[in-house]
Amino acid sequence: MQQRQTKGNWKRKLHEIIYEADTPMGKWFDIILFLIIILSIVLVMLESIKSFDKRYHTYLITAEWAITVFFSLEYIARIISIKKPQRYIFSFYGIIDFISTIPLYLSLFFGGAHVLLAIRALRLLRVFRILKLVRFMGEASQLKEAIKSSRTKIAVFIYTVLILSVIMGTIMYLIEGEEAGFTSIPRSIYWTIVTLTTVGYGDIAPVTDIGQVIAAIIMILGYGIIAVPTGIVTVEFAKQGGKKQHIDINTQVCPHCNAEHHKDNATFCYNCGNILNEQ
Amino acid sequence: MQQRQTKGNWKRKLHEIIYEADTPMGKWFDIILFLIIILSIVLVMLESIKSFDKRYHTYLITAEWAITVFFSLEYIARIISIKKPQRYIFSFYGIIDFISTIPLYLSLFFGGAHVLLAIRALRLLRVFRILKLVRFMGEASQLKEAIKSSRTKIAVFIYTVLILSVIMGTIMYLIEGEEAGFTSIPRSIYWTIVTLTTVGYGDIAPVTDIGQVIAAIIMILGYGIIAVPTGIVTVEFAKQGGKKQHIDINTQVCPHCNAEHHKDNATFCYNCGNILNEQ
Amino acid sequence: MQQRQTKGNWKRKLHEIIYEADTPMGKWFDIILFLIIILSIVLVMLESIKSFDKRYHTYLITAEWAITVFFSLEYIARIISIKKPQRYIFSFYGIIDFISTIPLYLSLFFGGAHVLLAIRALRLLRVFRILKLVRFMGEASQLKEAIKSSRTKIAVFIYTVLILSVIMGTIMYLIEGEEAGFTSIPRSIYWTIVTLTTVGYGDIAPVTDIGQVIAAIIMILGYGIIAVPTGIVTVEFAKQGGKKQHIDINTQVCPHCNAEHHKDNATFCYNCGNILNEQ
Amino acid sequence: MQQRQTKGNWKRKLHEIIYEADTPMGKWFDIILFLIIILSIVLVMLESIKSFDKRYHTYLITAEWAITVFFSLEYIARIISIKKPQRYIFSFYGIIDFISTIPLYLSLFFGGAHVLLAIRALRLLRVFRILKLVRFMGEASQLKEAIKSSRTKIAVFIYTVLILSVIMGTIMYLIEGEEAGFTSIPRSIYWTIVTLTTVGYGDIAPVTDIGQVIAAIIMILGYGIIAVPTGIVTVEFAKQGGKKQHIDINTQVCPHCNAEHHKDNATFCYNCGNILNEQ
Repeated sequence: MQQRQTKGNWKRKLHEIIYEADTPMGKWFDIILFLIIILSIVLVMLESIKSFDKRYHTYLITAEWAITVFFSLEYIARIISIKKPQRYIFSFYGIIDFISTIPLYLSLFFGGAHVLLAIRALRLLRVFRILKLVRFMGEASQLKEAIKSSRTKIAVFIYTVLILSVIMGTIMYLIEGEEAGFTSIPRSIYWTIVTLTTVGYGDIAPVTDIGQVIAAIIMILGYGIIAVPTGIVTVEFAKQGGKKQHIDINTQVCPHCNAEHHKDNATFCYNCGNILNEQ
Repeated sequence: MQQRQTKGNWKRKLHEIIYEADTPMGKWFDIILFLIIILSIVLVMLESIKSFDKRYHTYLITAEWAITVFFSLEYIARIISIKKPQRYIFSFYGIIDFISTIPLYLSLFFGGAHVLLAIRALRLLRVFRILKLVRFMGEASQLKEAIKSSRTKIAVFIYTVLILSVIMGTIMYLIEGEEAGFTSIPRSIYWTIVTLTTVGYGDIAPVTDIGQVIAAIIMILGYGIIAVPTGIVTVEFAKQGGKKQHIDINTQVCPHCNAEHHKDNATFCYNCGNILNEQ
Repeated sequence: MQQRQTKGNWKRKLHEIIYEADTPMGKWFDIILFLIIILSIVLVMLESIKSFDKRYHTYLITAEWAITVFFSLEYIARIISIKKPQRYIFSFYGIIDFISTIPLYLSLFFGGAHVLLAIRALRLLRVFRILKLVRFMGEASQLKEAIKSSRTKIAVFIYTVLILSVIMGTIMYLIEGEEAGFTSIPRSIYWTIVTLTTVGYGDIAPVTDIGQVIAAIIMILGYGIIAVPTGIVTVEFAKQGGKKQHIDINTQVCPHCNAEHHKDNATFCYNCGNILNEQ
Repeated sequence: MQQRQTKGNWKRKLHEIIYEADTPMGKWFDIILFLIIILSIVLVMLESIKSFDKRYHTYLITAEWAITVFFSLEYIARIISIKKPQRYIFSFYGIIDFISTIPLYLSLFFGGAHVLLAIRALRLLRVFRILKLVRFMGEASQLKEAIKSSRTKIAVFIYTVLILSVIMGTIMYLIEGEEAGFTSIPRSIYWTIVTLTTVGYGDIAPVTDIGQVIAAIIMILGYGIIAVPTGIVTVEFAKQGGKKQHIDINTQVCPHCNAEHHKDNATFCYNCGNILNEQ
């Protein structure tokens, strides 16, 4: 029984390091993981540059294998250290971890498929888990709050923009026609969105006089419409500013059910009732 | 008389389904109509893509006929179920319904004219009637209110933008001339609007040194001017935020005069005095 | 003496019609003048379109002469009807009126010089005098007030944008060099402004990797910087919203000294002390 | 001893002229320095224009030498007039002064290196020292304050934009591929930032249908995201507006330790305790 206790202790230790950031070890683990993820994404990018890949292919593939092995070990450690592994495996981050680790193994069987390798860019999402643990998320949640509470207004706004794009796109299709690049209604709608949002690539541009007049109207409309989301968000921010938010983020994660956001002085998990820190 | 009652009942039932959304049947009718309208617009778009139309022309034309017949029946049902049909026929939506249903019939006589078929895109406007019945219009009306009450300011703003465009356009026409694409004053004004709204296609761009200096000034002006509508709308939103809007939208429509926006507990039409729900 | 009185009356009548908009005659005069100015500007624009000018040259030149004669007569009437003509002649609008009337006469001696004729576009500024008399100027003055009181902030902002453009422009000149279109520091600065204001023509675009990284930084900077003028103007508008403006615009103009903005119940000119309405 | 006093007086006089702007002499020195700096930057720009440099090379090089000698003398004067020269030499502006003066001397030994001469554009930063002394910095500091206190929010925002760019860039790389210009993931990310910030050069533009749909989504996203920094800054400005700032800028600089921002009635330096104005 002494042994079981020890084994439990060891697992709990691992859980604390991997899932939490309150202990020095936990913090170091997060920082190292963060750096490896960033490095891994940089590698994916460099690989996509043909000339670079040609020259340093061996180095890139070696580094990629090293990282994949590290992520595989981490993935296994995450499963071992938790009491109900399926909770992790089928969670959002569990799936992301799996998908972003597996491509290199698959490429052994199916060849280094283009799409397959690019999936590794999903590793970027893993960064969010680490950032979730640091205090500047308070600001982020305030931003999120402001956007969330103006959700319906933004939906109405986007809906209006889309309707406008379809109508204007159809009109421009009829006026401009083939030569100017307005080859179909969908392409015309694409152009309208490019114009309305003031992006303006210039790959498609009106050449007829009436087309240019309507384009000018769309631009001024877009110019005015941009005021709407800004107005909405600003007012929401102003409201948010009033109520000072007190968020005490505690990075502890229940070893039983994986629940997060425990209060600082919590002893039992609010979700499953088990003890959080069994010492 | 029993029969007349029944017939009246039958018509009233139809009116309730088509014009209102309070009963389950009425809701279903709206959902189906909504989906068919969207489908019909997607068909119009696909038709406009040459390569797609060539391949699937038979399928597209069959689907189009099916939808046109459905809309025709709906149009007739709308006329039958209302007590004063001319109220519907000459209303905004009545006209839209007619115009967006007729093109295919006309194409039998005049050939599948390009413009004729694109008119079907007007069906998109029909979506608004359905959306009018759902609760998220409360938000939309708040947006509309904010824009409406800052109407004069926005008019002054657009007027200023136009004057500025004409003056700057004329100056650029004199400076840049033919080679750079500034072939006439109207085209120069078009360019100025493209620049002032920060769209910037690049189909016309200044090449002379003085022209580029003036272009830079126009850009910075445009950058500053964009602040004006944003400021106006934001302040209006902030005002709107104060007064919480209570909109009890009732989807009942008077079967006599087609008036809308009846109070939830209304028994008689506020417009013509007739009973709203004769059971 | 009876005759002098009559003559004075006649002049006063003319003054009332031309300079004011309180009487029905004065209003009609303004509306007609407004339409002729707009017509005249449309003519200038059409003339600049080569193909149009070739076809309808005779009509355009005839219409232009008719308008020039009308403006000449109006100019003379303005001088006659006022008691101190030099006040009008050397006023802002007096000079505009003269400059925008004279080109056609000059073209008789110097040939239809390109620049000479474009000067006629200045007639657009004459529209402001007429608009000054209508009530919607209240809103415009509120806009002007908001912009005026945030003048210093906007100056600091534009100054920052310019400094940033010079520094970034120089850096891009060093990095990109000739081939990408960054042929000189001024041209590089022009490109930076095009990018910073999110216009983005694409006539000049970075091709090197480091150049694109710096371009991306400039874009995100520009994206953030756009918030500054918006913030400034919005706050000013919010302040302006508090104090309801009461502007009683009286369109009377003193026949002695040409002073404007008399109070509604004024009998004497606040500027020169003469009687405003000598009946 | 009389002589030492005089010498001290002479140095103090020089210090007052060069480092401060309270005396008429000090003001004139700043104005002249400002004009010479601006002139010098204009010269650097003109030099970069090949055609101009070819024609007026002798004039440009002469003017450049005159300015360099003037800056050298100023640099020496700055060192002499201060009691602890190393404080100036290793300060931010001391280094800028040195770096922006030295290139021409170096070009004697290493030839007129491209990069070397462009460094002179750094002289622009010297303008800030002069501007620091004028009163309109009050406004600037208010702007800075607003931006500073919304720093974290802006960081979160930029972070989100970058993450979004990486994810969207990778997706577009997979969809569009080589022909459309999406040659590598970094280039795809560059394109995403160009689109998200609504710059839209058009040097790279999606050509496939799915690519254009995703591009449209990115544009609308960017259109909405632009609201966030605006909202943040506006709310900060509104807060700043409440507290009226009282900044009494005193341009005195301690001749002993070079400390700035002394109170108007200060006699001793708050930093080193020495007398500020020893008369």
